[in-house]
Amino acid sequence: MDMDKWRHIFKLDPDKEIDDGMLEAVCESGTDAIIVGGTTNITFDNTIDLLSRIRRYAVPCVLEVSDVDAIVPGFDAYFIPVVLNAQNPEWIFNMHVKGLEEHGPFIKWDEVFVEGYVVGNEDSAVAKLTESRTNITEEGMKAYARLADQMLKLPILYIEFSGSYGNPALVQAAQKVVHNSRVFYGGGIRSIEQAIEMAQWADTVVIGNIIYEDITQALATVKAVKSVGR
Amino acid sequence: MDMDKWRHIFKLDPDKEIDDGMLEAVCESGTDAIIVGGTTNITFDNTIDLLSRIRRYAVPCVLEVSDVDAIVPGFDAYFIPVVLNAQNPEWIFNMHVKGLEEHGPFIKWDEVFVEGYVVGNEDSAVAKLTESRTNITEEGMKAYARLADQMLKLPILYIEFSGSYGNPALVQAAQKVVHNSRVFYGGGIRSIEQAIEMAQWADTVVIGNIIYEDITQALATVKAVKSVGR
Repeated sequence: MDMDKWRHIFKLDPDKEIDDGMLEAVCESGTDAIIVGGTTNITFDNTIDLLSRIRRYAVPCVLEVSDVDAIVPGFDAYFIPVVLNAQNPEWIFNMHVKGLEEHGPFIKWDEVFVEGYVVGNEDSAVAKLTESRTNITEEGMKAYARLADQMLKLPILYIEFSGSYGNPALVQAAQKVVHNSRVFYGGGIRSIEQAIEMAQWADTVVIGNIIYEDITQALATVKAVKSVGR
Repeated sequence: MDMDKWRHIFKLDPDKEIDDGMLEAVCESGTDAIIVGGTTNITFDNTIDLLSRIRRYAVPCVLEVSDVDAIVPGFDAYFIPVVLNAQNPEWIFNMHVKGLEEHGPFIKWDEVFVEGYVVGNEDSAVAKLTESRTNITEEGMKAYARLADQMLKLPILYIEFSGSYGNPALVQAAQKVVHNSRVFYGGGIRSIEQAIEMAQWADTVVIGNIIYEDITQALATVKAVKSVGR
């Protein structure tokens, strides 16, 4: 698993239905990895069910942990979001402390990567849950990028517009100041053009909802993103 | 400046008076470093004034940044607290983002060290300001220690009892699970016995208020702390 080369990721939501044919197409698409994650109704059962189905394929599979009770062993890696612009302390560190009290001694830390999340779409479930400050300027995004990259030295800065297509200038602003964190962009990509646009600035482009809405477009983003040099 | 060898630190508050004789005694005491920092009434003027007086001596001098407007250039290093058990988001990341918007491009990051703070004394000014969850068990402290050390890979875990002497078992619990973060203890040390007790578990013992209350006792903690092997 070499995350530094991941340009394209599909994100699958355990709370959404996907049939075997579509799942095979996604896993065999040439994408660099699958992230399993979502915001609502994520359980141990629907997470382990989805993992076991993805495991038939060779693609690396990562769990993005959003609920301490839905941590399933057997993923290649675990992404732990810290929402940098959350205003609800539950979603900054309280959840992590609760999780560490339960699971701390058993965690394989070389499989764990912290994502510095910046949530951009005020209407998204994740923004409402975390009470995120979503009104972010380019200068503000640079500050979040420096917080993740230089101050906290996190492996991933994740710019998340969950459901709406974000402003590429914000991703560009982040990329300009980041030295070591990988810049992920996810949210609202529904066309090849949008995938290509974000791939110019993001190190890694995450494709989510469109999988469930237009699988043909979703699959086409793999080649599109990988055609953009960085 | 080799922070990994610092066993004893004096913390001086720019908002408190200290005469030249006492300041010389503190700086020439054999302590490993001076931290300049406090919670209330910290200004650019009182910070630069204290720095310029400490600079007559060879001891390393660190600014613990508590107010973006009181960042003074010329210190050997800058400690940036992130209060891991704060419930007021202003004191988790909002202040940092504000500071990074203003100063981000000009920061020398090799001089910056993030402190994962755990605030333990509910009656302290810092606990009230940050709305910290101060009711911390040993298991809870281990979770905070893993958050600082393994999850966030911070250079410093700072257990702060500000004004009251804390439970050494909490420092011991943190030290047990930490791999790389340096464990600082500060707060309420008013005797050689207390300094020695905390020095058994803390990598670095920080002596503050007693400087202003009983300088002889304060100076005696240097030798006491350094007599304890770790």
